[in-house]
Formats: sequence, structure tokens, C-alpha cells
Amino acid sequence: MKALLLVAHGSRRVASNDEVRELTKKLSKEKHHYNHVDCAFLELSEPSIPNGLRSAIKAGAKEIIVLPYFLSAGRHVAEDIPEEVAIVQSESPEVSISIAPYLGHSHGLTTILLEQATLHNENT
Amino acid sequence: MKALLLVAHGSRRVASNDEVRELTKKLSKEKHHYNHVDCAFLELSEPSIPNGLRSAIKAGAKEIIVLPYFLSAGRHVAEDIPEEVAIVQSESPEVSISIAPYLGHSHGLTTILLEQATLHNENT
Repeated sequence: MKALLLVAHGSRRVASNDEVRELTKKLSKEKHHYNHVDCAFLELSEPSIPNGLRSAIKAGAKEIIVLPYFLSAGRHVAEDIPEEVAIVQSESPEVSISIAPYLGHSHGLTTILLEQATLHNENT
Repeated sequence: MKALLLVAHGSRRVASNDEVRELTKKLSKEKHHYNHVDCAFLELSEPSIPNGLRSAIKAGAKEIIVLPYFLSAGRHVAEDIPEEVAIVQSESPEVSISIAPYLGHSHGLTTILLEQATLHNENT
């Protein structure tokens, strides 16, 4: 069983965290091959990354992809997320947990940015 | 003449700002109908939003789309960027400057997030 965990920074602003939860709902409704799709937050909101991973494992996940919802490869992506993931990996060595490249690294970004600008332009 | 200005938050980490500049170069090389594609930063890096807009106007832009490279609709997107844009709009009322929805609002996000996870999964 496969799980996808979208990991965001987390914000003091509740609406920002809710945006991530909404996006996760949209993700789970898209066509994909994950049995479990959830989100977690590095800080300032719940669930934490370890708790998000533990929920996926409780739900039966044998393979978890962590997807960092971050625009740049700063300390959070390079160090903090791997550290949080390592906690649960050592608790559950039988589960395969891996971290995908962060959003800002996506080849599709330029396409959706241009779409965003063009759609806006057509509506003004 | 049309211009596109990608606006990022800006970081103390030079590499993060350079990632935005690289993305802007990639954007400018895609197929689009802008004569001028540039980036600007709300804080911590250069050019500022007003200076980015002024460069586009100097280059001949009559219509500028500001594209916020932000994941959530916080104060930066709702207030700070519009305030910075308003400074240059009042200096150059003959130029049409408008702000497109921020990246986190894009319908295409779920698609590229799933692509990112799947590509990663295929490579592991």
C-alpha cells in the first residue's frame, strides 16, 4: 500500500494551513495510485511530519512518498524535513519512506505560471 | 508591449534568490507573448517590486502582469504586493499593471505535484 504525504512549512495564519489541507483534498481526488493521501506540517500546525507518517503507517502504508510543498531548497528542505522523516524511518524500518524533490524543482512550474498569467490576462 | 514580472518573497539565502532568477530565465525561454520577462523581490533581494516595474516600463512595457510566486494568500499577497505595485501605478498611470492570482491558487498545482511524486517514485 502506497501513501503520499504533502509536507508544508505551516503558518501562524490558520487560513494558510487550511489552503494546504484543501489542496491535499484536491490531490486525493485526482487520478493517482496512492491509497492514502495526507498532509503534514514542519511547524506551527498539526499533524507534525512524524505524526503524519505514523498515520499513514497505521493505515497500512508500506511505501510513503514525502512531497515537500516548498519553493526553494533551503534548510527546511535540505535538513529539517529529512531529520523529521528519519525519526519515523528508524521506528518503522520495514516501511520504505522517501522524499521527492520539492515543488520549486518541478519542471512543470513554468507551464503553470504562464497559464496563470494568461488566464488572468484573458479575464481582465 | 507586454511584460511579465514574477514576484518572489526574497530570502537571506542567496541561492534561493538565484533559484527565482533561474526560473525566470526558464520562463522567458518558454513559448509566450511577453516582450519582457523579469523577476523582482518583495524584500531581502534586488530588484524591488517598484524597480522591477520601472525597468519593464523603461523597456517599453504598456501592459505588465505581476505574478506572485507565493504558495498562500497571506498578507504579502493580499496587501504588500498591491501596495508596492500601487507606487509605480501612480507614477505611470498610462501603463496597465495588474496582479495575477498567486501560484498557490493555480489549478495546475495538483497535476505537477503528482507528476513530481510519480517521477521520483519511478527513479527510486
